[in-house]
Amino acid sequence: MKRNFTLSFFASLLLLLATPVRAQDPLPAWNDGAAKQAILNFVKTTIDPASKNFVPPEQRFATFDQDGTTWVEQPMYTQVIFALDRVGTLAPQHPEWKTTQPFATVLSGDKAAMAKLTMKDLETIMVATHTGMTESEFQIIVKDWLAKAKNPRWDRPYTDLIYEPMLEVMKYLRANGYRTYIVTGGGQDFVRAYAEQVYGIPPEQIIGSALDAKYGYNATGQAILTRPPKLLLNNNFSGKPEDIYLFIGRHPKAAFGNSTGDQQMLEYTQAGGGASLEMLVLHDDAKREYAYGPADGLPNSKVGTFTQALYDEAKAKGWTIISIKNDWRRVFAWER
Amino acid sequence: MKRNFTLSFFASLLLLLATPVRAQDPLPAWNDGAAKQAILNFVKTTIDPASKNFVPPEQRFATFDQDGTTWVEQPMYTQVIFALDRVGTLAPQHPEWKTTQPFATVLSGDKAAMAKLTMKDLETIMVATHTGMTESEFQIIVKDWLAKAKNPRWDRPYTDLIYEPMLEVMKYLRANGYRTYIVTGGGQDFVRAYAEQVYGIPPEQIIGSALDAKYGYNATGQAILTRPPKLLLNNNFSGKPEDIYLFIGRHPKAAFGNSTGDQQMLEYTQAGGGASLEMLVLHDDAKREYAYGPADGLPNSKVGTFTQALYDEAKAKGWTIISIKNDWRRVFAWER
Repeated sequence: MKRNFTLSFFASLLLLLATPVRAQDPLPAWNDGAAKQAILNFVKTTIDPASKNFVPPEQRFATFDQDGTTWVEQPMYTQVIFALDRVGTLAPQHPEWKTTQPFATVLSGDKAAMAKLTMKDLETIMVATHTGMTESEFQIIVKDWLAKAKNPRWDRPYTDLIYEPMLEVMKYLRANGYRTYIVTGGGQDFVRAYAEQVYGIPPEQIIGSALDAKYGYNATGQAILTRPPKLLLNNNFSGKPEDIYLFIGRHPKAAFGNSTGDQQMLEYTQAGGGASLEMLVLHDDAKREYAYGPADGLPNSKVGTFTQALYDEAKAKGWTIISIKNDWRRVFAWER
Repeated sequence: MKRNFTLSFFASLLLLLATPVRAQDPLPAWNDGAAKQAILNFVKTTIDPASKNFVPPEQRFATFDQDGTTWVEQPMYTQVIFALDRVGTLAPQHPEWKTTQPFATVLSGDKAAMAKLTMKDLETIMVATHTGMTESEFQIIVKDWLAKAKNPRWDRPYTDLIYEPMLEVMKYLRANGYRTYIVTGGGQDFVRAYAEQVYGIPPEQIIGSALDAKYGYNATGQAILTRPPKLLLNNNFSGKPEDIYLFIGRHPKAAFGNSTGDQQMLEYTQAGGGASLEMLVLHDDAKREYAYGPADGLPNSKVGTFTQALYDEAKAKGWTIISIKNDWRRVFAWER
């Protein structure tokens, strides 16, 4: 027995030594280049207790915009597609919608007319589809829709359109003690319905535009929260750092965005002092995803404006541009 | 050398065996009784994977009211004392206050007149002392005050007036995977200034009444957040479950309060279903702390109303009353 033990001990040791010693690449969906290197350098320097850039674990926060930063936002935000679909689903309960705008346009299915809906029209549609139910009911509605709806270009569920390189960054940051937050102009409760499953991010780490939920009781006296048509947080532009402060009370150490709506979040991140990482996704790959944003000569779009001014600010302040075309080996997980 | 090592090894082993094997009491400042037992039972049943009451770690949230629940709130909320003190500190910069109400009353030092200040007066004082600076500046102001100010009854810093039994509950819950949050009607930023140090609770786990912080830039173009005189969250009564939903997105599993301002938070906790713990501190110990609240025949007070209706709801719903007189062996850590 004793001899066998000794033998197997040495056998294990030999096996261990025979295993090639090589650090695994935490970002395999990224091509080598400045963007990938910026992420690796940031993590390396901020987790090293001997580094002047060391960040104590309790201060390790990383914030991610969602639309256009962690998943596809073209040709429309997914949440808007959800709202338009809901108009169809709810139409039988609202016969008046057939002759009431903007609902009649949505129900007509006329894409050209729908593309002309104004912000005010969309607001009316959002109120009709996002409010009036309890918070729990809304979670179920969103989950049910996501389970069935498909993006027509790729014929895949919308949650398949998450950028694999960004998922890798999230996992890499978390493995090094960073807490990852979604900080989105989209609805906080919409994102909460799938964020834990697709990003590994729990509800308490989702900061988004939010309704002023109203406390009350149902027919049996049970406490419930309902969704009134009243916006409490407009989590975009300056709203992002303001709400990050409200929720976290600290500057993030890393922030990721793709548009002018993220500019202030990145500025606020850098203003925290010490080592920080600010990154902007440039959509320059029409073949694998989309190409848009007036920066770098790309065409304009209705959503996700990456202006030349933002591009210039990024260059001046040492923020890092992520080129989808050049920096991402794979865009989506299913391309493997 | 070898023999000495062997001897000391066996000596250590004997010493180890001689130590009485007994689980350490996680709540030594509590007397045995229903309240202590309710806490122990709740933790035991919710962390046991074999129990039908098991709560997965990602759902383990416990929320604590502050004033009257985790520290002394009599004769005035500490934050109000801070505001009144600030009026004195800022007076040299505001010569007009000598003849302007309600500042003149505060500066007079006339306790009887100050006790008659209305809610509107206090609001004016709060705006004058809590707004107009950056968020970082406010943190420094609060920290500086806490380092110097003393409660006259005990001649101790206000942060010494934290209830040791509640600190033990927080630590015990955290040791069992619960995340502890302060959910206070008081100012979120006021509490954040000391919560990490005194409660071991980081800024992102403080939910409180909050101003609508405003993003902007200082003279050198640096991103800053300033404090406007505009309330965003009134975190009391129904505001507590509403803001818990905003910040956490889940029902807490345990909630601690002491007044009608906490009623809805406890209802919301229980409405989450499954095992839960709802506790209310009854201030019935005039000798060691204070005795107030119309429940159980105690005198009324201006703050922290524990009404008979709340008492009856607690009894009807199986919530647990914590009697300071009977359930707490020690009230403050310095009584040891």
